[in-house]
Amino acid sequence: MTRTLSALAVAVALNSFGNFTASADPLPSWAESDSRDRIIEFVAAVTDPQRPEYVTPAERIAVFDNDGTLWAEQPVYFQLIFAMDRLAQMAKDDPSILTTPVLQAAATGDLKTVAEGGHDALIEVLNASHSGVTVDEFQSAVADWLETARHPETELPYDQMTYQPMVELLRYLRDEGFKTYIVSGGGVHFMRVFAEEAYGIPPEQILGTYMDTTYDSADGGPVITKADGIAFVDDKEGKPINIERTIGRRPILAGGNSDGDFAMLEWTTAGDGPRLGVLIHHTDAEREWAYDRESPIGKLVDGLDKGPDMGWVIVDMAQDWSRIYTGAN
Amino acid sequence: MTRTLSALAVAVALNSFGNFTASADPLPSWAESDSRDRIIEFVAAVTDPQRPEYVTPAERIAVFDNDGTLWAEQPVYFQLIFAMDRLAQMAKDDPSILTTPVLQAAATGDLKTVAEGGHDALIEVLNASHSGVTVDEFQSAVADWLETARHPETELPYDQMTYQPMVELLRYLRDEGFKTYIVSGGGVHFMRVFAEEAYGIPPEQILGTYMDTTYDSADGGPVITKADGIAFVDDKEGKPINIERTIGRRPILAGGNSDGDFAMLEWTTAGDGPRLGVLIHHTDAEREWAYDRESPIGKLVDGLDKGPDMGWVIVDMAQDWSRIYTGAN
Repeated sequence: MTRTLSALAVAVALNSFGNFTASADPLPSWAESDSRDRIIEFVAAVTDPQRPEYVTPAERIAVFDNDGTLWAEQPVYFQLIFAMDRLAQMAKDDPSILTTPVLQAAATGDLKTVAEGGHDALIEVLNASHSGVTVDEFQSAVADWLETARHPETELPYDQMTYQPMVELLRYLRDEGFKTYIVSGGGVHFMRVFAEEAYGIPPEQILGTYMDTTYDSADGGPVITKADGIAFVDDKEGKPINIERTIGRRPILAGGNSDGDFAMLEWTTAGDGPRLGVLIHHTDAEREWAYDRESPIGKLVDGLDKGPDMGWVIVDMAQDWSRIYTGAN
Repeated sequence: MTRTLSALAVAVALNSFGNFTASADPLPSWAESDSRDRIIEFVAAVTDPQRPEYVTPAERIAVFDNDGTLWAEQPVYFQLIFAMDRLAQMAKDDPSILTTPVLQAAATGDLKTVAEGGHDALIEVLNASHSGVTVDEFQSAVADWLETARHPETELPYDQMTYQPMVELLRYLRDEGFKTYIVSGGGVHFMRVFAEEAYGIPPEQILGTYMDTTYDSADGGPVITKADGIAFVDDKEGKPINIERTIGRRPILAGGNSDGDFAMLEWTTAGDGPRLGVLIHHTDAEREWAYDRESPIGKLVDGLDKGPDMGWVIVDMAQDWSRIYTGAN
């Protein structure tokens, strides 16, 4: 009896802290749609102890890709724009760091040349701009960049180009007892700078690509430094591998937008019991960008071909979202 | 005002769920000692919003080594005993897997030969016994082993050889708003089988050494398989590197027992603000084992030489603990 009353007290107390109640709309930026209904129905099913689909809170793990799923990724991953801006700034102090044509192009903002260099060029730019610096210094540089940099088309700060419907979904899931994670091809040190404020996701729930780091006991105290070389690429099969390794539980909900997320959604939804895969389809050329099968960034083929048969919710951005960016209506 | 009342309601409700109140002893298996007083004083300082040392709950990260810190590690790491037992069982079905003298020795329980082979022999035994199996199958094998295997000296199940004072410390820290993690040289898949029940630590808060794994979309659904080769060794400098990479926050409390934990305690206690390093010194030859500077397992030199000057609490097991194992008085 005491236990029941206490549980009630917690429920009431938590409710008065929350920013919506059961009667309010948890997803106000989602239009009335099948996508929205299916998400809400899934959450209702797994959180109701009276239903056979009920899942204990500890197992309510939800994982989300970042680029193209929680924030925009056009004309190119924002972290690459940061890398090029940083390289330009570093070259002001010491132009000799631009040792190759790719790095020289990157420092002038010549995205075309960098893109034509493919994967090797990308790694070259990331290594040159992201290594030889302590984690603390690197994260200060990211924070400074986010303060001043503006997107070339929207002119918004990059961390205002988060998708408001997804920010609402993350909050809704947490309010319903889910633990929300990012599992992204982006770098962990980059994302941790803004993810807690932008998404409410703390550092320890951010999985991503990471570089080697070194630990050194210096005179002024030990430091951890970003080294040359990518230690782990958190993309494609790397996503379920990283989830298994780091979280150690299979999620019950996964959200993504490209074929880099296919394995993560496959791994999530192939588990026993209720599962939900959510795929964001970029269909809105007017308010955002429309791209899928042919895009060099966020290419989506397998998800469109196989996702519907696997029961995944395919979100049509143009139809299903009444608002796009957190930073603009 | 409503906010204050709600906070109060949560506090009261949580208290009635907890298994002790402020007036009960949170560390009943710790003897009256300087170690015990310093731990309690630290926790009191960082959890009192009125004190300058106050730390917000989100930053109350506590990390612990496992072998020799949370459970015993003599005559050799329990995971190696499991590996040898498993190799013997596998060889029953197929003796041809014992391709080298080291593997043949391991399968007969000849610890001396394995130990003489050093690091290479250890890796050989781990690879042969831990790879080519799905994570699910591997964890079932660990669970079966824990059910039946008994320690050669104490005759206890291995998961009853956890240290009761440390189990109490973990619970006490969580009750005071800390998030408790294991950061161990042991394998993540091995530890996750028993750590939640034994220590109250969920899979996503267990960091350790891990092997490469592969993700395969099989006909019966995707599987993750343990592959040959150690991907990351979570020992020495690897511990702060893994904490930084995975948790992304510097802990405020770290516990260990060997020089493999030195960098983790150094990293933790070199941070700004209140910090606590706790080093378990194995001094009890009667109830457990007495070992430090000369031991091949759990060697402790740097911690004894430098720890006191760095303000670390050096726990004298014989003096400071009134009880050792969870499974025996």
